[in-house]
Amino acid sequence: MLHLPAQHPLASGLTSEASLISAYTGKTPARRPVWFMRQAGRSLPEYREVRQGTAMLDSCLTPDLAAEITVQPVRRHDVDAGIFFSDIVVPLKLAGLDVDIEPGVGPVFGEAISTAEQVAELPELTDAALEPIREAVRLTVHQLGSTPLIGFAGAPFTLAAYMVQGRPSRDHLAARRLMHADPDTWAALCAWTANVSAKFLAAQIEAGASAAQLFDSWGGSLSARDYEALVAPSSAKVLAAAQAYGIPVVHFGVGTSDLLVSMHNAGGTVMGVDYRLDLDRAEERLGGGVPLQGNIDPAMLGAGWDALSAHTLDVLARGAAAPGHVVNLGHGVPADTDPTVLTRLVEFIHSVPVDADPVQWAAATKLGA
Amino acid sequence: MLHLPAQHPLASGLTSEASLISAYTGKTPARRPVWFMRQAGRSLPEYREVRQGTAMLDSCLTPDLAAEITVQPVRRHDVDAGIFFSDIVVPLKLAGLDVDIEPGVGPVFGEAISTAEQVAELPELTDAALEPIREAVRLTVHQLGSTPLIGFAGAPFTLAAYMVQGRPSRDHLAARRLMHADPDTWAALCAWTANVSAKFLAAQIEAGASAAQLFDSWGGSLSARDYEALVAPSSAKVLAAAQAYGIPVVHFGVGTSDLLVSMHNAGGTVMGVDYRLDLDRAEERLGGGVPLQGNIDPAMLGAGWDALSAHTLDVLARGAAAPGHVVNLGHGVPADTDPTVLTRLVEFIHSVPVDADPVQWAAATKLGA
Repeated sequence: MLHLPAQHPLASGLTSEASLISAYTGKTPARRPVWFMRQAGRSLPEYREVRQGTAMLDSCLTPDLAAEITVQPVRRHDVDAGIFFSDIVVPLKLAGLDVDIEPGVGPVFGEAISTAEQVAELPELTDAALEPIREAVRLTVHQLGSTPLIGFAGAPFTLAAYMVQGRPSRDHLAARRLMHADPDTWAALCAWTANVSAKFLAAQIEAGASAAQLFDSWGGSLSARDYEALVAPSSAKVLAAAQAYGIPVVHFGVGTSDLLVSMHNAGGTVMGVDYRLDLDRAEERLGGGVPLQGNIDPAMLGAGWDALSAHTLDVLARGAAAPGHVVNLGHGVPADTDPTVLTRLVEFIHSVPVDADPVQWAAATKLGA
Repeated sequence: MLHLPAQHPLASGLTSEASLISAYTGKTPARRPVWFMRQAGRSLPEYREVRQGTAMLDSCLTPDLAAEITVQPVRRHDVDAGIFFSDIVVPLKLAGLDVDIEPGVGPVFGEAISTAEQVAELPELTDAALEPIREAVRLTVHQLGSTPLIGFAGAPFTLAAYMVQGRPSRDHLAARRLMHADPDTWAALCAWTANVSAKFLAAQIEAGASAAQLFDSWGGSLSARDYEALVAPSSAKVLAAAQAYGIPVVHFGVGTSDLLVSMHNAGGTVMGVDYRLDLDRAEERLGGGVPLQGNIDPAMLGAGWDALSAHTLDVLARGAAAPGHVVNLGHGVPADTDPTVLTRLVEFIHSVPVDADPVQWAAATKLGA
């Protein structure tokens, strides 16, 4: 077990009673905690304003800007957590890789990294290089006060999928070929991405993040057997490294309904569930005892209030099966989302008493659908 | 039950004993049947040659060219079926919609179709408009002889997802919003796409296709509840219309491991399984009795022969659990596939005796991995 610094928000007690932390750890929260993946970003006019003229990775590496962007949605929506504004390729950039984020495309590398030689030559991510991350986190948690900050990192497979392809792809064929064509190079690459992810998370946690989330955005492209044999061990290393700090660690994947149990076996104290799988079915598959996060369908944010509120009540009702439930979307906030809908949604979720059956409560108060 | 014309290859007995049809109908085939999704197309030099200077939709609508492209992979690889060369948006184009295929992008519409007014004004797909399809199928089956032709169409949801977005997208948010924001317009749109798909399939079947496949490429973006309530009824109409001819009908989706049973409940006499789900687990989920098609991982085509042949033997072994098994990929042939690998793979699959345990047979003959 690693020790958090005494002045860390969780160690000092500043965030330890927050609703988010209570729900993540299976205790009863003061209110139903909610935050949104991609809450910091494109849907907010104040974000678009401060980002003007600054490239994506530059804004991630400018501590006061990253802190401001992280705090913006907390200020506006009264969500129960900040999620650190960054990108999963930031630690790769900090290690010295030639990578940039092309607007409308995603991460693009100077060259695809797929040979044994290239993997052997991958640079080490130094502690010094992570200083802008620690500084941004320190600035953020100072502003957030008793609202917990969630640190985040990309899972080793998702990072490797980008590196081997050199850019985003639909099927991640290049990476999925490599894992079978050259298992040794694949293992070496994943050892490197796991190390980089673990260090990126550790920097955020030590500087003040009260929880962490590992995103396996492309895990859904894998069969359960490939995931378990060729990917899970790397994710397990990152998750164990984060869990060693004794903080809640969320493990989330997209399109991974069929991998939920395998992913939980790899690690995470909380499972994030995408919008495709009902939370009560997720709870059932996990065999109980695992706090859950999710899973309002992002499509519902644009489907009108009646549909959205009815869907949200259903998510709350199904989430009650878990020992703890943090409300979130089942994927990121779409760029064209009306931010006033998010604010109203947070208010609505907070208005549902923690000890009430959501659907009965709504019927009784004539709110909701 | 609809009757096939007397001269139809299946009705006349020309294709009724083919290995493909035997396996699709749970009988023992003369050899292990195999074909590949996207076998006709970009991976073949002879395809790239005949396509030179002709746009995608034009080549689909030029009967002798579509026939030639359909037959090319049968000639080259000795696969057990031709899959009609076309595109799922062809019937939309034939109905009069402003749609084109942009190379490297996919279907792009002149305007997104998402309002009640637009849906109400969608044109009817006439029987006359389908004549180039019937002509291409007649030319194809004449050349294929005793090798069955598989007709195909896009599932109503997948077509609607393209129409509502106006172009390809990752999450199909626009369509998934519409189904909740305006269920009546959604239902009307899916009634239209179902009708168009059913007519497109019927034209191919009546002109000589001995089997049919419905592709729900984007079904994997749906939760089981949305699929069952808002999509399955439309797919069921198309599948029932095709099954009314008494031919084998394959129902296939991508990333739909968790929807397999719901999809089978909607229809299909054979379930296509993508590479993510082992065939023996698919068989188990379906409760037995359903012939299966699949599911070699396309990534394996580029992973070297040792990995590919070992994986293929595993697929054959797992497929033995089903009452019939047609070997295929678990998704389309990647554009950069070496066609000689496909030819070798077909030969390898055909060399495994139908009554042998594939893994034991390989060990005994020292073939395979």
